[in-house]
Amino acid sequence: MCDRKYAILGTGALGGFYGARLQKAGLDVHFLLKSDYEHVSKSGLVVDSKDGDFIIPQVNAYNDVNKMPQCDVVVIALKTTQNYLLPKLLPPVVKDHGVVLVLQNGLGVEEEVAQIVGNVTVIGGLCFLCSNKVGLGHIRHLDYGKITMGEYTHQYYPSRITARMQQIADDFNSAGIPIELAEDLLLARWQKLVWNIPYNGLSVILNARTDELMADANTRILVEQLMNEVVAGAKSAGRIIPDSFMQTMLNYTLKMKPYRTSMKIDYDERRPLEVEAIFGNPLRKTQAAGVNLPQINCVYHQLKFLDGKNRG
Amino acid sequence: MCDRKYAILGTGALGGFYGARLQKAGLDVHFLLKSDYEHVSKSGLVVDSKDGDFIIPQVNAYNDVNKMPQCDVVVIALKTTQNYLLPKLLPPVVKDHGVVLVLQNGLGVEEEVAQIVGNVTVIGGLCFLCSNKVGLGHIRHLDYGKITMGEYTHQYYPSRITARMQQIADDFNSAGIPIELAEDLLLARWQKLVWNIPYNGLSVILNARTDELMADANTRILVEQLMNEVVAGAKSAGRIIPDSFMQTMLNYTLKMKPYRTSMKIDYDERRPLEVEAIFGNPLRKTQAAGVNLPQINCVYHQLKFLDGKNRG
Repeated sequence: MCDRKYAILGTGALGGFYGARLQKAGLDVHFLLKSDYEHVSKSGLVVDSKDGDFIIPQVNAYNDVNKMPQCDVVVIALKTTQNYLLPKLLPPVVKDHGVVLVLQNGLGVEEEVAQIVGNVTVIGGLCFLCSNKVGLGHIRHLDYGKITMGEYTHQYYPSRITARMQQIADDFNSAGIPIELAEDLLLARWQKLVWNIPYNGLSVILNARTDELMADANTRILVEQLMNEVVAGAKSAGRIIPDSFMQTMLNYTLKMKPYRTSMKIDYDERRPLEVEAIFGNPLRKTQAAGVNLPQINCVYHQLKFLDGKNRG
Repeated sequence: MCDRKYAILGTGALGGFYGARLQKAGLDVHFLLKSDYEHVSKSGLVVDSKDGDFIIPQVNAYNDVNKMPQCDVVVIALKTTQNYLLPKLLPPVVKDHGVVLVLQNGLGVEEEVAQIVGNVTVIGGLCFLCSNKVGLGHIRHLDYGKITMGEYTHQYYPSRITARMQQIADDFNSAGIPIELAEDLLLARWQKLVWNIPYNGLSVILNARTDELMADANTRILVEQLMNEVVAGAKSAGRIIPDSFMQTMLNYTLKMKPYRTSMKIDYDERRPLEVEAIFGNPLRKTQAAGVNLPQINCVYHQLKFLDGKNRG
């Protein structure tokens, strides 16, 4: 169908799901695994999905990036807490003039990736996906799946929609993954923080689901105040998020099923929290622009303390 | 020895300790009790103290304020969460031209008391006391005990040291309680908040002792940032707290034994937290002066949520 080779770095709830869907659609996909390597090499990937369950019995599985073929599109599907590994992982697997697609939360990762591998295109992708890894090579896709993609340019200047972006979008679309192409990646990233910062942060600190945070007048106010600080942070980067967007996020959350955030799940599983990508980087960017976000700063330090103690 | 009658409203860890010490020194003390009334009427009060254990076998115990004699000095030793009871409790028990001594945490209570009973002197007292109630009529005094007292004047204008204050100080001194007399009650209250706001708040939210909050770089920074906001709040009320005071509080806490704050103990015992007196009132006073304390505001809303859920 297509000669583009895909590498998936990190075959978990997110990378496993998208990679399996791409392979099912006929694409040539190569998976980097760690703990699940032996199992997946033998038995493949199993995806239980609300869109239909399926199995990929034959998987190109690797436990060493140096054994992988050089790929046209390298998908970073690790948690950002693993990004210290990227200088070792990326160079062997990405083709010259290839694409690195960063499917991660938070701010600033594309910039880091561009510094690691020179002659590539870096695309950021924001995933709206509910999925969990429920066993070795076994993924449960609960809801959603859409990805918003934008191309990284030096200092995040807005870019046009390139042919390369469109090709990748076509591949994902052929796998049944809806793609939205954005001209302003940085705006899209700040918009996602409008949700991620209050709900991920408070869910961990207060041991609460999204519905509890919305039902209590005090946390409801705090959610809005944190959202306002995110909007101020975006503004310091020259990105305007209208009040109506905040209102949309609040209404959307009110209508959601009671939801344990991804950061709360990480916390409960005693995995490292993505505090730096989601809180630390936005705070540092904003501070460099001379703007102070005191409530986000408070939540950041609380999370850092809890994360340390949790893995202690 | 002395003809001043004392009433103790709230015979718990604090009121029971100070009241028992006053009676032991020969003063005429009348105790209002609730759950411990029957036991204390029969068996008196038992105080285990680092200064020497003692028993008060015969106690003037009451379970109804209307049965108490009118007293010269009425000590409010309830938690501030019980202050909605004061309009019923105070008028029957305080003598005309008597004194109400508010031994409570936080800000603004003297003002409320002055509105409830007109023709009295209101004195605020800040207690530096570690004690717990460990059983019916049984108090364990662990450490400290000093009280800083200042007279309340309209709008908290600094006042002079009056003869009345000196008399009460003499009574407490005769009972072995060190008293410091302050000319500026409001300054003393804001100074106490420099400690209470960061440590009480974070200990509950982060489930941490004082030593853990000081040992972790993130909470250490957050403690200092919260202290800085308290200093800004004091300034909005015209009270200057020098940086050296903050440093003294930090050093003092570093040297303390690992300590579970009083608010954390209340939380663990599922008692209502004194959030309004310690956080809400300072925030409202400061906001009325046009000053915003965003990190204290964040901690306030978090505590309100946790308090509600804890007793929920």
